[in-house]
Amino acid sequence: MQKEKLLGKIKLPEDIKKLSCDEIDVLCKEIREKIIKTVAKNGGHLASNLGVVELTVAIHRIFNRPKDKVIWDVGHQCYTDKILTGRLCQFDTIRTENGISGFPKTAESEYDGFNVGHSSTSISAALGISESKKLRNEEGKVIAVIGDGSLSGGLAYEGLNNAGKKNKNLIVILNDNNMSISKNVGSMARYLARIRTKKYYIKARNAFGKIIEKVPIVGKLISRAWNKFKTLLKDLMYDSTMFEYMGFTYYGPIDGHNMKDLCRVLEIAKDFDKPVLIHTVTVKGKGYKFAEEKPGDFHGVSAFDVNTGKGKSSGSNFSKVFGEVICELAKDNDKICAITAAMTDGTGLTDFSKMYRERFFDVGIAEAHAVTFAGALSLNGLKPVVAVYSSFLQRAYDQLIHDVAIQESKVVLAIDRAGVVGEDGETHQGLFDVSMLNSIPNSVIYSPSFFEEIRRDLISCLSSNANLSAVRYPRGAELYKPEYYVNTNNPYDTYFESDIAVVTYGRIFSNVCLAREQLLKDNINIKIIKLNRIKPVSNGVVKEVLGCKKVFFFEESVLNGGIAQSFGIELVRKNFEGEYKPIAVENKFVSQASVESSLISIGLDAQSIKQTIYEFVNI
Amino acid sequence: MQKEKLLGKIKLPEDIKKLSCDEIDVLCKEIREKIIKTVAKNGGHLASNLGVVELTVAIHRIFNRPKDKVIWDVGHQCYTDKILTGRLCQFDTIRTENGISGFPKTAESEYDGFNVGHSSTSISAALGISESKKLRNEEGKVIAVIGDGSLSGGLAYEGLNNAGKKNKNLIVILNDNNMSISKNVGSMARYLARIRTKKYYIKARNAFGKIIEKVPIVGKLISRAWNKFKTLLKDLMYDSTMFEYMGFTYYGPIDGHNMKDLCRVLEIAKDFDKPVLIHTVTVKGKGYKFAEEKPGDFHGVSAFDVNTGKGKSSGSNFSKVFGEVICELAKDNDKICAITAAMTDGTGLTDFSKMYRERFFDVGIAEAHAVTFAGALSLNGLKPVVAVYSSFLQRAYDQLIHDVAIQESKVVLAIDRAGVVGEDGETHQGLFDVSMLNSIPNSVIYSPSFFEEIRRDLISCLSSNANLSAVRYPRGAELYKPEYYVNTNNPYDTYFESDIAVVTYGRIFSNVCLAREQLLKDNINIKIIKLNRIKPVSNGVVKEVLGCKKVFFFEESVLNGGIAQSFGIELVRKNFEGEYKPIAVENKFVSQASVESSLISIGLDAQSIKQTIYEFVNI
Repeated sequence: MQKEKLLGKIKLPEDIKKLSCDEIDVLCKEIREKIIKTVAKNGGHLASNLGVVELTVAIHRIFNRPKDKVIWDVGHQCYTDKILTGRLCQFDTIRTENGISGFPKTAESEYDGFNVGHSSTSISAALGISESKKLRNEEGKVIAVIGDGSLSGGLAYEGLNNAGKKNKNLIVILNDNNMSISKNVGSMARYLARIRTKKYYIKARNAFGKIIEKVPIVGKLISRAWNKFKTLLKDLMYDSTMFEYMGFTYYGPIDGHNMKDLCRVLEIAKDFDKPVLIHTVTVKGKGYKFAEEKPGDFHGVSAFDVNTGKGKSSGSNFSKVFGEVICELAKDNDKICAITAAMTDGTGLTDFSKMYRERFFDVGIAEAHAVTFAGALSLNGLKPVVAVYSSFLQRAYDQLIHDVAIQESKVVLAIDRAGVVGEDGETHQGLFDVSMLNSIPNSVIYSPSFFEEIRRDLISCLSSNANLSAVRYPRGAELYKPEYYVNTNNPYDTYFESDIAVVTYGRIFSNVCLAREQLLKDNINIKIIKLNRIKPVSNGVVKEVLGCKKVFFFEESVLNGGIAQSFGIELVRKNFEGEYKPIAVENKFVSQASVESSLISIGLDAQSIKQTIYEFVNI
Repeated sequence: MQKEKLLGKIKLPEDIKKLSCDEIDVLCKEIREKIIKTVAKNGGHLASNLGVVELTVAIHRIFNRPKDKVIWDVGHQCYTDKILTGRLCQFDTIRTENGISGFPKTAESEYDGFNVGHSSTSISAALGISESKKLRNEEGKVIAVIGDGSLSGGLAYEGLNNAGKKNKNLIVILNDNNMSISKNVGSMARYLARIRTKKYYIKARNAFGKIIEKVPIVGKLISRAWNKFKTLLKDLMYDSTMFEYMGFTYYGPIDGHNMKDLCRVLEIAKDFDKPVLIHTVTVKGKGYKFAEEKPGDFHGVSAFDVNTGKGKSSGSNFSKVFGEVICELAKDNDKICAITAAMTDGTGLTDFSKMYRERFFDVGIAEAHAVTFAGALSLNGLKPVVAVYSSFLQRAYDQLIHDVAIQESKVVLAIDRAGVVGEDGETHQGLFDVSMLNSIPNSVIYSPSFFEEIRRDLISCLSSNANLSAVRYPRGAELYKPEYYVNTNNPYDTYFESDIAVVTYGRIFSNVCLAREQLLKDNINIKIIKLNRIKPVSNGVVKEVLGCKKVFFFEESVLNGGIAQSFGIELVRKNFEGEYKPIAVENKFVSQASVESSLISIGLDAQSIKQTIYEFVNI
């Protein structure tokens, strides 16, 4: 790795326009080195970012940002743009507390067109910007850059469907790398694969277009037939019908690493008076051997060694344990199916996908479909388990109600990344799933604290009569496990006796146990109630604390709609006469930081828990 | 209207197979008469149901139900199927309390393949059934019947994208009537319109296919070119590429009222070993003059006069008032935009759509897109108002968080049909929006009780600094307005003094006032606190009741995550020493009945409220 010489000279995006072709090559090389070095240190999205270096530079060469707006879908590919729009000096802070975000953020820079983190929003957002520019008579193009993976999400289609012919300032750049996070699936992916194999590029199309325009036409009937024939010939050469049908003028496929071709097509699109779709083909991980070889492994990564591509081995985690357990259970129960929305690896389902191919469904980035589909599998006697990240489950709230709960389908959710997730920040926090599920009648929710409880809770879900049941567990490793802990099959467990009771669940149990040890030093004893099943809370729990003077509830979730609120109401209804103090995330989004630091900011680390109890007891 | 003679003889669907062609015509006529007569009495979905009489009968003639499953998308067109599957005698009870549902319900009949009510789920559901049949080695086809309107929803696309080639038992019937609820929008609609204009029918295709198959082929290269040419010729004749690309064998367009054509194509599809998409063209409202002329007006209707097509004039309603107010406000503020997801008329936006065409956006049945799009409009300085039914807003929970709240877009929601909705039942109840919005940080929610408050609250929202603000109001008319009521600009209003306090909001305020009058007769006086802004609840409200002995909270929402819970927690935190009793919908779905009857079942009618207070006070 050498010092970036040219990169340091790019103060404003306009500076990119002044570079020679050779300099541009050097610039791209320096950007790649910067990204690799930084991600190796901070973790982040690597392969997707390496794939769009040339595309991002080309956009800057042709367009005038920020007047021309760019919306990066998902935001897994915005690093080059951040580096080139005045954030080079801060780039080292990416994904750290108080540093710049790993995703586009409107509050961070005027160059970031829209906040993202979840997939498939870019076309809808670009349309909103496009229409507002029209209404305000503002100049400038609006460019949505969307991966082929994101195209599997229904929201992307809703956007395409609404784009239509009137959004003349709209450009959609399809960044086709034949990947979502895993290998892409579905008929759209097959369609794109078909186009990708063609070798006709923009130059050919231009020449062809000109020849056709010159053919003389006689009579209306012939004219119409001829136009039809032209379309068919275009189809033959470009196979572009799908997007043309959606109202776009299609250009592609373009080699997304060929700067000349990219600039040429962007130039055409810039002057075009119709919505344009540019289909670029890129290589995920481009320029970093290990990432090119295994782009899936280098999608989202923790810190790693640049020279070997190897990360620190991080031991087991909840996702991995879930993956092992579901494989084991599926062995004896051929009704168990697993469903993921493009997160086979992230949710720990890789082994399952190989061992039980017939019963494994990767549906693309389509959480809503995943849930409805599962609802139907269950109706016909199977046992579907939908493995999904907490924050992405937000996309299927209606389907949970409408396609599962109301008709009493027995769907099991394995909710990964529940609770704070750390460096990905606001958009990825798993802080809403409890409120979502708590609001749905007759749902049952388990929240394991330790690896071994996943098995217990998954079995409970699979044998439950509830229409909708869920096991939710955090990202990463289990925390402190005290020696007095026992894995029971009870809906809740009580440890110690005191008139100060602390109710909690999930990994916060560990922190409460640590807090207890500190409190003992101050001669404060607490009764700990560990909820295993957090909904419904059994009547027994409420009775356990009715006689207590002070009751605390520590919860890694938003407060509104969470279990601490439901629990509090039950206390009040039973004429609880002591004091009740719920601690959860109140009316704020939790920004990026390490998980430890995030828990401190919410007051859910051991020290804060100790302090809260200490102060409240000593009032 | 004559007595149905033939219809009465259809005891089981198999009986339909025995009828002659002439008898089938009579049967269809009798079914239409039955539907018109019943809907005129009970209200319901008329135009959509009249459009699929022949299609439904044809499905019964060709397939063997319930072994062959049928999933009706949205369920607006299931009446004929209900009549023909053993529910003729109960048909008079449709949409009434304890009667049969106006939507397919798996619990009601084995012929109903999936519960519906919301749009665009049918392909996902059919895929689930299809895969489960494969895994269980069950015979039978799975048929999704989906309207062109439903195809504008992203979930339908997610389903299509996942259908692929391996679901050999899958048949999708596209019921194309060039309508969703309003006139259909978007590029898919334009695409279908293009196909519809063609006059090539299934017979032509069959003949053509046979000729092509017989042409001799020499050499691999020629073979490939020839196949390509065949596809192009097919495109030329059928324009079927879009669905063929999605992995379906396409048949259409078929006249959806021509029994012979329908049966012929269904017969082919039945024996086909690939997923098939049949494109039928139907007339919404077919067979009932008034509905054919104005299908939009006869989509969902209240009771009407069969001879004149006229309903009882029902006076004003919240939707209408919202429509008037937004037009008025938009006159003086050219930043106000209105967005609807295919509910222009239902949400009261018809006038706005005509007066402010440039600022009006009907996005199709695409609530998620509506919200993301609005988020982007706001980022660029406009004032978007998304008018949406409460239960459909469930489809945009993630977008509210991810595309509005986190990036502090200023989006206003006008939430119609909030609270119980009556005859449409479980799927349409507006009982979750409060919990959804309450869980989202920094959101602001208003819940007007009377028409005149819509204006006040909409102005508050539009001038609010909140990222996300909402005005939510019920279906239909305002209820009892006592003479002491005053429309203020306060976040809450207090009426009367007592140590028994009743907190409430929205239309339940009327019932609380009525209950008060009855309680006064028993010498029980109550203090009424009417929340105008329900989130955030101002500290003042909590202080107002802190000294009370008993506090009630009546809320037309699910309990979990609702305002009564948040309010209760605030009471506890402030060491409230009295008793607190929240009354809301607890852990159940509310089934179909009149609104009045539904409120009774939840305990929110005046009499129940009176009784609850009376009993609790006299303990």
